[in-house]
Amino acid sequence: MARQTKLLILASDAEAYQQAIVEADLPGLTVAVSGAVDKESPALQGCDILLGSPDLLCQALPHARRLKWVQSTWAGITPLLAAGLRRDYLLTGIKEVFGPLMAEYVLCHLLTHERRFLQRYRSQQAGQWDESPPGTLRGKRLGIMGLGSIGREIARVVAGLGVRIVGFSRSQSSCPAIERCYLPAELFDFVRNLDYLVAVLPDTPATTGLIDAKVLSTMRNSAVLINVGRGNVLDEAALARALSEKKIGGAVLDVFAEEPLPASHPLWQTPNTILTFHTAAPSSAELIAPIFIDNYHRWLGGEELLNIVDFNRGY
Amino acid sequence: MARQTKLLILASDAEAYQQAIVEADLPGLTVAVSGAVDKESPALQGCDILLGSPDLLCQALPHARRLKWVQSTWAGITPLLAAGLRRDYLLTGIKEVFGPLMAEYVLCHLLTHERRFLQRYRSQQAGQWDESPPGTLRGKRLGIMGLGSIGREIARVVAGLGVRIVGFSRSQSSCPAIERCYLPAELFDFVRNLDYLVAVLPDTPATTGLIDAKVLSTMRNSAVLINVGRGNVLDEAALARALSEKKIGGAVLDVFAEEPLPASHPLWQTPNTILTFHTAAPSSAELIAPIFIDNYHRWLGGEELLNIVDFNRGY
Repeated sequence: MARQTKLLILASDAEAYQQAIVEADLPGLTVAVSGAVDKESPALQGCDILLGSPDLLCQALPHARRLKWVQSTWAGITPLLAAGLRRDYLLTGIKEVFGPLMAEYVLCHLLTHERRFLQRYRSQQAGQWDESPPGTLRGKRLGIMGLGSIGREIARVVAGLGVRIVGFSRSQSSCPAIERCYLPAELFDFVRNLDYLVAVLPDTPATTGLIDAKVLSTMRNSAVLINVGRGNVLDEAALARALSEKKIGGAVLDVFAEEPLPASHPLWQTPNTILTFHTAAPSSAELIAPIFIDNYHRWLGGEELLNIVDFNRGY
Repeated sequence: MARQTKLLILASDAEAYQQAIVEADLPGLTVAVSGAVDKESPALQGCDILLGSPDLLCQALPHARRLKWVQSTWAGITPLLAAGLRRDYLLTGIKEVFGPLMAEYVLCHLLTHERRFLQRYRSQQAGQWDESPPGTLRGKRLGIMGLGSIGREIARVVAGLGVRIVGFSRSQSSCPAIERCYLPAELFDFVRNLDYLVAVLPDTPATTGLIDAKVLSTMRNSAVLINVGRGNVLDEAALARALSEKKIGGAVLDVFAEEPLPASHPLWQTPNTILTFHTAAPSSAELIAPIFIDNYHRWLGGEELLNIVDFNRGY
């Protein structure tokens, strides 16, 4: 009888993953779960595959002696790229699945802005009949930074409402919904005439601090920034200043340099700012387990896995 | 030289219409404007065409001796259907143009509900990091009452986000985005399993009070009602009770039996209710003037006009 392949699930919601995977009845697989890293555990030391969240995986890596493959349950795998961590295994990430939720998030905030949702809600609270006319997305200009699967899905959905879309990417990228793709050297031209700037960039050295005081001061006074990618892309102090001085019209922030956002952080009190607490597209076992299951079948069949991460690119 | 055709524009924003129409340089047309009805005015008594809002038009009708055609600037032409008013002229309305704005309105309120927008906004005000997961529109079931151009445009846009759509109409109607069309006798089957019920019905005797206590009690406890058509469709007292007793999950109301909503009306204080003050799709000269201009060209050319209202059907 062939040796069983050993999977350890390392996540705060490990049981939900376990249930989905056991139900899939994968051949030759033994499944163990843990909600925390125990470096003495035989399940960790003897596992062939790790499935879990990068915050736990990065602590587990040194102790997994037989490790061949790691499937991350998060799109953001930055903790696994830390200097000194081993890279002698196959790392697969999560792509494609967050696009629809991210598109709903972006559309929600575009529409609440155009339709003065909060202003009208406050009028209702005050008992005032508020007929101020709404805006429309039709004909507005939206720029998307980062044209991976999430950025392209946002473009597809938002273009369906008549929004004109331009993109920004480190290399030329095309997508039917995008009128033009700007390259890094064209950043200022890219942001100059936008009504909305949506950032969905991964956390890499090249993206850190990309949206700084200079970029913000190039944007229209009425423009709204939506950051739904990673917190590193944004100079938060510069943003708080730009909003307070009305150099831009508003910001919708799902991600931050430090999460949870510290109680003393100025963004809690910055005008025209909406905070959404990293809820744009939460990982859930329902969404992610099928990716592991698909990849396990590929693994068994000797096929190339989906969503392999390039350690050098960082995504 | 042929006699000039005389147009009188009767609307609170008559000048905006005048500007758009004068710019179009329509052949053989003399344009007069008024913000109110003056029954002695030669411009009214001698006009061939009236363009304006039905609240003013209905007062003007008896005095326009040469009247041949009336173009309404509102979709709701109920004031022109009052008993005793003349019907010896061609009445054209507004269709098609409100669909995109109405679709943005409906989508805005679907997404704010799924994503707990107001709950999260209150968390932000309270300085609380609120990670409660959002819902998704994908797979939700939405029913549309009224499958005219607005209902069909709402269906088209919302279906693009993976929402399953059923319709309700007085006659069989088909539309690619709609899974099934229910007829009046099937009203209770129609509403039974919906996550969202969107009403975009015209104001006619057949629609008055259609959404009553019995319909509301047939809906899911979690269902949300969105009324963006006319206020007559809804038994407002029954709705306020259903919301207070949590028989349905919420309501988003743009239109009311009496507008502005009286200060003492219970809906101001009803839980899980959003009021938007008849702003879903405001008429604007920018949106409406092109319809008159198109129809005037058809009028000159002896073609059939667009959006002719059938006085008997009422739309």
